Amino acid sequence: MHPWKTHSRTVVLDSAPWLVIEKHVIELPNGKIIPDWTWVNTPDFINVVVEMADGSFQFFRQWKYGFDRISLAPIGGYIEPNEDPLTAAKRELMEEMGCEASEWVDLGCYRIDANRGAGMGSLFLARGARQVTAPSGGDLEEQTLIHLSRAEVLAALRSGEFRGIAWAANVALALLHSG
Amino acid sequence: MHPWKTHSRTVVLDSAPWLVIEKHVIELPNGKIIPDWTWVNTPDFINVVVEMADGSFQFFRQWKYGFDRISLAPIGGYIEPNEDPLTAAKRELMEEMGCEASEWVDLGCYRIDANRGAGMGSLFLARGARQVTAPSGGDLEEQTLIHLSRAEVLAALRSGEFRGIAWAANVALALLHSG
Repeated sequence: MHPWKTHSRTVVLDSAPWLVIEKHVIELPNGKIIPDWTWVNTPDFINVVVEMADGSFQFFRQWKYGFDRISLAPIGGYIEPNEDPLTAAKRELMEEMGCEASEWVDLGCYRIDANRGAGMGSLFLARGARQVTAPSGGDLEEQTLIHLSRAEVLAALRSGEFRGIAWAANVALALLHSG
Repeated sequence: MHPWKTHSRTVVLDSAPWLVIEKHVIELPNGKIIPDWTWVNTPDFINVVVEMADGSFQFFRQWKYGFDRISLAPIGGYIEPNEDPLTAAKRELMEEMGCEASEWVDLGCYRIDANRGAGMGSLFLARGARQVTAPSGGDLEEQTLIHLSRAEVLAALRSGEFRGIAWAANVALALLHSG
């Protein structure tokens, strides 16, 4: 099996850095040409499930514009230019919760849209986390911090309270790791 | 806490049905106006982890354009107009693998991009699956069918062989359910 070949790329919508849409001319392994494949560039991001030193898990309860009701959420943020995912994860843990962690588990880096790109999400589990300062984050959303036991996290995941797909992946992978 | 209000929507790129980009004028709970929030419409989709009647799991090994190497993948497909997610999942199981399942587990419906939309993914676990006919699927990708034990699925998930974030979510949620 061989990957598809990209013959050319044309930007058709530029809202950088948040969204850049391209059309690609693609050649399939059988030689067929697709003249107008849509490709989506959005920023890469990290998510972090935070397990505190006492074994509890710390999440936000927050709205996002894409939801029709409130959601539980792990830490999340875009990766800055020239920043590696783990550095971004540690920065966001400090900014959003004022915490440091003694152990970082890499839960993988995943393509958001297998067909059209839409960036990569790097997922982490931070263990042995402790609050060392006040949070400084200035996200647009109102949010409240909550603590859950492992059993409560699993129940919340199963009942659909983590409403973003990257968040569900992050939480499920963290539970599989720590289980 | 209150959700954000949408004052207006303007289409700025129309590649329907695959991609429609809108700009929204949004009001935050504190009254602040965001005049140009980017919103992405892409088709809703389903993914299905397939557990055969003998307890093995059946996946594809395939390229997608968004990957730099081959990936393991569950069944996936877009939901047709006026189709509900479970019906789409059963249709795709028949088309892509020629199988029926005796038990369907709903693993949830998730927003792909919490901020900008990008559709919803509905994830399922099909259990007690049996091959009843030959697959008829005509996806663009070359793909091969593989069987894995539960332990092999967990190992593949942990080593990053499921490269799409919806796929990782689907597999991790299925393993948590069946564990």
